[in-house]
Amino acid sequence: MLGNKSINENNHLEIAGCDVVELAQTMGTPLYVYDEELLRFNMQEYEEAFRENYPHFSLAYAGKAFLCSALCSIIEEKNWWLDVVSGGEYYLASSADFPVEKIIFHGNNKTQEERHLVLRGGVGRWVVDNEVELNFLLEEASSYASYKIPLFFRLTPGVDPHTHQYITTGKIDSKFGFPLGEAEKAILKAIQSEDLEVWGLHCHIGSQIDHIEPFLKAAEVMLQFMADFRKKHGFVFRELDLGGGLGVPYTDEERDRFPPSRLYVQAISEKVKEMCGELSYPLPRLYLEPGRSVVNTAGSTIYQVGSVKEIPGVKKYVAVDGGMTDNPRPILYGAKYQAHVGNRVVGEQEKVSVVGKCCESGDVLIEEMELSSPRPGDILVVEATGAYNYSMASNYNLIPRPGVVFLRERKPELVVRPESWSDLVRRDIVPVD
Amino acid sequence: MLGNKSINENNHLEIAGCDVVELAQTMGTPLYVYDEELLRFNMQEYEEAFRENYPHFSLAYAGKAFLCSALCSIIEEKNWWLDVVSGGEYYLASSADFPVEKIIFHGNNKTQEERHLVLRGGVGRWVVDNEVELNFLLEEASSYASYKIPLFFRLTPGVDPHTHQYITTGKIDSKFGFPLGEAEKAILKAIQSEDLEVWGLHCHIGSQIDHIEPFLKAAEVMLQFMADFRKKHGFVFRELDLGGGLGVPYTDEERDRFPPSRLYVQAISEKVKEMCGELSYPLPRLYLEPGRSVVNTAGSTIYQVGSVKEIPGVKKYVAVDGGMTDNPRPILYGAKYQAHVGNRVVGEQEKVSVVGKCCESGDVLIEEMELSSPRPGDILVVEATGAYNYSMASNYNLIPRPGVVFLRERKPELVVRPESWSDLVRRDIVPVD
Repeated sequence: MLGNKSINENNHLEIAGCDVVELAQTMGTPLYVYDEELLRFNMQEYEEAFRENYPHFSLAYAGKAFLCSALCSIIEEKNWWLDVVSGGEYYLASSADFPVEKIIFHGNNKTQEERHLVLRGGVGRWVVDNEVELNFLLEEASSYASYKIPLFFRLTPGVDPHTHQYITTGKIDSKFGFPLGEAEKAILKAIQSEDLEVWGLHCHIGSQIDHIEPFLKAAEVMLQFMADFRKKHGFVFRELDLGGGLGVPYTDEERDRFPPSRLYVQAISEKVKEMCGELSYPLPRLYLEPGRSVVNTAGSTIYQVGSVKEIPGVKKYVAVDGGMTDNPRPILYGAKYQAHVGNRVVGEQEKVSVVGKCCESGDVLIEEMELSSPRPGDILVVEATGAYNYSMASNYNLIPRPGVVFLRERKPELVVRPESWSDLVRRDIVPVD
Repeated sequence: MLGNKSINENNHLEIAGCDVVELAQTMGTPLYVYDEELLRFNMQEYEEAFRENYPHFSLAYAGKAFLCSALCSIIEEKNWWLDVVSGGEYYLASSADFPVEKIIFHGNNKTQEERHLVLRGGVGRWVVDNEVELNFLLEEASSYASYKIPLFFRLTPGVDPHTHQYITTGKIDSKFGFPLGEAEKAILKAIQSEDLEVWGLHCHIGSQIDHIEPFLKAAEVMLQFMADFRKKHGFVFRELDLGGGLGVPYTDEERDRFPPSRLYVQAISEKVKEMCGELSYPLPRLYLEPGRSVVNTAGSTIYQVGSVKEIPGVKKYVAVDGGMTDNPRPILYGAKYQAHVGNRVVGEQEKVSVVGKCCESGDVLIEEMELSSPRPGDILVVEATGAYNYSMASNYNLIPRPGVVFLRERKPELVVRPESWSDLVRRDIVPVD
């Protein structure tokens, strides 16, 4: 079991002290639930690690992992920054009254509508991804904003986190950011503009990364670039954003695969201090952008089992009332999950396949797993669905998307209401003949 | 080029006589557009083929490929049936006043809420997928419906359409339907019930199938089952639904890969007549359920190009204002698409990658293709996006989903309005502290 879960006297699963069977009965299924305390704890771990290891830092939560208004309030309360990657995420954050001066605005292709929204509304850091965008900004900044746009430049340090040779190609194949060799001219252009203010550099080397070295290699490349740039142009970058990407376990088996966030922060902090010492570079304010590692383990999905089907000699299928529409990660990436029968956690084990209700044969949530003999009507809880489930959900098959509940002080609080059937036809225009 | 497209005197692409540049300007991008005439033509092809080859048939459009209220009106007007696979699709169809007696209700795991909705509202054919569902129906039918529920039984004939050995395992590994060996008892139970009426059998062997033989093999297996069942129990199935699954080309290269729908209908009709002759079985009413082959070629997606980025010596990235959120098929299945620069169709060709605006490196629409030197601001049209694009779209990165426009008589008609940013926060509950 991952996170703060336990089994109560009724053999029911409890998450953050809430009985999942009661949750299913009172709030309906499928349902995304988040253990708010665990989520806050995960944030705390990052903060403390930074506080112990680095003089000035900012933590920014990567909203694309999971974002809703209630979460914005927690992010704000914890004094974190917030990454947004689109006009939609910016809109949500500002309509939840999140302070725009703590928003970092990302995106490889920010549309005109998005640029204008953010220029008008204000922003903490604007991450310039490419030259076309920079040229738009130079044109638009003075017309749409009365302040100097605070910029980061996104560079591709050429570190591949999924090989064991951290080759720096300098021209890695990515749709994101400036290749190192192309960035200089663009940054100079921005420095010279009266409407823009260059604060620092940004990179993000990948996601679900299970060892620390590639992050350190990326820090090294970025700091070397900063030192070279200072040498050549006399300009000092005050800030450095090393992105996110730390992986987390999805199953018990993966428990020891990933470094804890404390070690990750500590190692990066040491590396940056060491490099800055060597290069005599003033320590930049350091940003990290965790997303998945804050929310994933804190989230679970509660389903109800419908049909159970034994194909003699082949397999037993257990179908739940959701599937690839609320969790597309198995079909997208072959992601592995684990589950429990929420109303009978301990029981005789049986090998089954957990599938969804979509008319698509690939709609399989868990290919094969031992569960305590699931039966129609049982409650099934899939663990570690906190990241990239709600945010990637679809209405395929016109299946409504589940609601979201935060569990705090042993009580559920609905923070996103479930979609209704009538929501699904709201945008349809009925033809008049 | 696929479908009814042409190049006008301004070197702009026209779909169904509409200039895509004008469409982009007046309706915004990204935008799904459908050539209504082509869609109707595709339906017509099926109808005529059936009329020429088989005495009594029903065509049912598979709504999961693409469904909206305006399309329901066309389906109704053409006198087709409609496949729904969920309560949501049923809800949409009935709120568009589609006649429920022509709805076929599918699904491997129909929830209680869905079952009750459909029992109360009425249905043309209810496709029983498994024993758990049958038992629910036996319990619920008389309480929720005042009519005999008209049933199909979904069987898995064990034909694998994607190998060249059409092995009938009889216990194929599928989450859908009854294995042949398991169906008999269930069907008998339904025949004996006063609340249910068994009309026929159903099978669906797969999708995007590029040769006719597996369909014929499936028909053979189903008819043999019907004959055996009659021999044993004296019961004659009046209807046979052979599902859908005929593939269509997504690119010019695939043009000759798929049999035309006429040949497909003709071959199936012949096979059924031949088998029924041999078995002395009364010709059943034959159902087919095309989805993709009706709508895919008729649909296109119009984007605007934003950033264009050359990674020297590596690749040129062309980013559009949509991507995996409006078309997840490339990232899900590695699906291949082709595109045109809508405002400069003919021009010097250049090899590029078309990517989306999602913060996800897998958000690539077209890995590599020759296009006439796309520049920021250009209009890019991806062809053959009519099926499984709108229906599988997500709000990942909080990117709003595009609207849908039908092109009829050279005029655009908005049939689904585009999502707005405020739509994205409608379900959020803002915490009050």
